[in-house]
Amino acid sequence: MRVLGVDPGLTRCGVGVVDGAPGRPLKMAGVGVVRTPAEAEIGPRLLLIEQGLELWLDEYRPDLVAVERVFAQHNVRTVMGTAQASAVAMLCATRRGIPVTLHTPSEVKAAVTGSGRADKAQVTAMVTRLLRLDAPPKPADAADALALAICHIWRGSAAGKIAAALAQQQQQTPRPTVRQEYRR
Amino acid sequence: MRVLGVDPGLTRCGVGVVDGAPGRPLKMAGVGVVRTPAEAEIGPRLLLIEQGLELWLDEYRPDLVAVERVFAQHNVRTVMGTAQASAVAMLCATRRGIPVTLHTPSEVKAAVTGSGRADKAQVTAMVTRLLRLDAPPKPADAADALALAICHIWRGSAAGKIAAALAQQQQQTPRPTVRQEYRR
Repeated sequence: MRVLGVDPGLTRCGVGVVDGAPGRPLKMAGVGVVRTPAEAEIGPRLLLIEQGLELWLDEYRPDLVAVERVFAQHNVRTVMGTAQASAVAMLCATRRGIPVTLHTPSEVKAAVTGSGRADKAQVTAMVTRLLRLDAPPKPADAADALALAICHIWRGSAAGKIAAALAQQQQQTPRPTVRQEYRR
Repeated sequence: MRVLGVDPGLTRCGVGVVDGAPGRPLKMAGVGVVRTPAEAEIGPRLLLIEQGLELWLDEYRPDLVAVERVFAQHNVRTVMGTAQASAVAMLCATRRGIPVTLHTPSEVKAAVTGSGRADKAQVTAMVTRLLRLDAPPKPADAADALALAICHIWRGSAAGKIAAALAQQQQQTPRPTVRQEYRR
């Protein structure tokens, strides 16, 4: 199973692709960051994220996309941008019929380090070890995206089946028509 | 000038289209709501919003899209969904090269009622009057979307010119390539 993890952000959107199955060795297929200029307007930034993620989806064709679940109580200054970038990631995947699962930061930390309160350095160290990388992936957003993918592979089989069933159902749902979607 | 206003929301995304210019009578071209089922997963809901908004953009071909600016200090329970729906609206417009402007709720209220603290009933009453409608638009999200469009027409000419220039610049920016967008 190939999972593309997305650590959403407007300035840096971490992306990591991992192949694996529970109980089998993990293998990194790709890792990187979709960046947008902080000085650009929000619309163009979201478009750059969409275009960047589409390239990743085209190239890696994941079976599932795992996105970090964003909470409103996080850092208020960045939370809106994070929520908006995560919306783009979920939209890109759903549009292709790729199932999406959400994992909280503490689920991800617990999955790769054993502790839901692990710090970034610990997460990066474990990701490097679990994927047998020569050097830690940089920046931290890229390591977090890989951790999300690993988290899904290890704990997400039930969640993944539900997400896959929902994605299939969504594909079968007729697209809205103008008449259904608005009323004068 | 034709402005499509979007009052973003996951369950109800208000949409209103107004034709007008500063100092000229306003005319409503269309109003409605893009709805998504509250019990659906977030990915499919965002996709339904995208598909619904695309239909509106196809049918009304606005010159500009005005979206309500979302703040993190709003109702924490709904703010994430609002931010995500607004991301879809900004993305759909930007993808088509349509300029986007953001207006705060108090800017919108002040534009149509004269007071930034007006309540929903007052906004709806003024929208009904300004657009010479036979009955108030329902639900409130639809009235808010019309108010956003009116707000832009009345106060947005400078902001609109900047947004148009940025949209044009964005259209001329080359799309990211795989190489630019990620690093292994």
